[in-house]
Amino acid sequence: MFNTFNIQNQSLKIMKSIIIASTSTLHEGSYLEYLLPTLQVHFKNCKSILFIPYARPGGISHDEYTQKAAQAFASINIKLQGIHEFESPESALKNAEGIFTGGGNTFLLVTQLYKNNIMQLLAETVKNGTPYLGTSAGSNICGLSMQTTNDMPIIYPPSFQTLGLIPFNLNPHYLDPDLNSKHMGETRETRIKEFHAFNSIPVLGLREGSWLEVKGEKITLKGSLQARLFLQNETPTELETESDLSNLK
Amino acid sequence: MFNTFNIQNQSLKIMKSIIIASTSTLHEGSYLEYLLPTLQVHFKNCKSILFIPYARPGGISHDEYTQKAAQAFASINIKLQGIHEFESPESALKNAEGIFTGGGNTFLLVTQLYKNNIMQLLAETVKNGTPYLGTSAGSNICGLSMQTTNDMPIIYPPSFQTLGLIPFNLNPHYLDPDLNSKHMGETRETRIKEFHAFNSIPVLGLREGSWLEVKGEKITLKGSLQARLFLQNETPTELETESDLSNLK
Repeated sequence: MFNTFNIQNQSLKIMKSIIIASTSTLHEGSYLEYLLPTLQVHFKNCKSILFIPYARPGGISHDEYTQKAAQAFASINIKLQGIHEFESPESALKNAEGIFTGGGNTFLLVTQLYKNNIMQLLAETVKNGTPYLGTSAGSNICGLSMQTTNDMPIIYPPSFQTLGLIPFNLNPHYLDPDLNSKHMGETRETRIKEFHAFNSIPVLGLREGSWLEVKGEKITLKGSLQARLFLQNETPTELETESDLSNLK
Repeated sequence: MFNTFNIQNQSLKIMKSIIIASTSTLHEGSYLEYLLPTLQVHFKNCKSILFIPYARPGGISHDEYTQKAAQAFASINIKLQGIHEFESPESALKNAEGIFTGGGNTFLLVTQLYKNNIMQLLAETVKNGTPYLGTSAGSNICGLSMQTTNDMPIIYPPSFQTLGLIPFNLNPHYLDPDLNSKHMGETRETRIKEFHAFNSIPVLGLREGSWLEVKGEKITLKGSLQARLFLQNETPTELETESDLSNLK
């Protein structure tokens, strides 16, 4: 009996299980509110999850940020503990039942992951099946690099390479051009086109309310909206919800 | 006579003379159009100026970009040559009568300046009095660092440090928050606040149509608009045009 259980557990564990959300919060919604039914299923085997607050939106403390996330998870009876509360971030990751990386500034998040020497370990842990949730900056790092972030470079990271949990890049909080705007700054689409002038990695513009579900090697677009796909030297296209992105690379 | 002329020339040369513009182009205007009367005076002693096209907006070629800038300067009878056309960017800089760095992607521009080993030389050349014009990315690099750019990190620069021609940072194309927006991505003000959570450098939000005029150590806000000043741990303030920013640091 124990053996069978272990084998089953093992086979569950080796399947990637990831939610990559454009945003934590929808307009007029509370923190993580729209995702809670999904998260209840996603983290159904977890009594507690590990929170990575490194991106620190608005520069709030790790404690304050963790408290905010803990409050949302309390409503689905999951405890949450900040990685900064552990003496060793490595063992915290290794022992985590589930992991959530919150949004904020991607440059700061990536710098902290490298500084604490856990970028590679986090990637391995999630690839080995520990369920993961990312929102915004925490989603950005799921791609091959953070080079399609919208964030300001407030700190200089040792590298732009990220977790590579999916074989393409993301642009969270994707924003369509405002056709009435008189502002001459680049649109999001122009910026991604600039990225493609020097990089061949596909970029998925994920609108607020959309997320990717990764189950093993299967990647599916979720939420009610379309997502915008940018391939090098091609006209961008719109993908319907439930699109299968498993072969995108 | 020759001696006197040389001394006068020398004393003119040691005064910084810089135009730092938020944007090259206003809505419904053509390239550099709104700045041409200012540039005619600014570059009055120049028959030709050196163009730095490294930021390459939209990934166009250095030649195409130089041609676009040359066209605008032709209307005020100034010739323009791209730095990429010279065998040695160093001697091109040293011999330049005037310098213009165009906009595009700041990460790309900064990477290229370091790669061609001319970041420091460009700073010295402009500090020694060669008249300089920057627009957008070319303005961003006039500050202490490029860390308040709006651009996407499409390439990894060796450093975020820039020319330091002025003792603060800039946010070109400054954009006021859209109070009707339902988008949850950070506003420009929020992003600059994030910068100030980790950096104490003042940041000037320069709206499109504004520019800074630097004459020696005097820095003046020009154009018809206000600019928004962000100081660490202080409420942002609006500065009127013609404000003296010489003591901002």
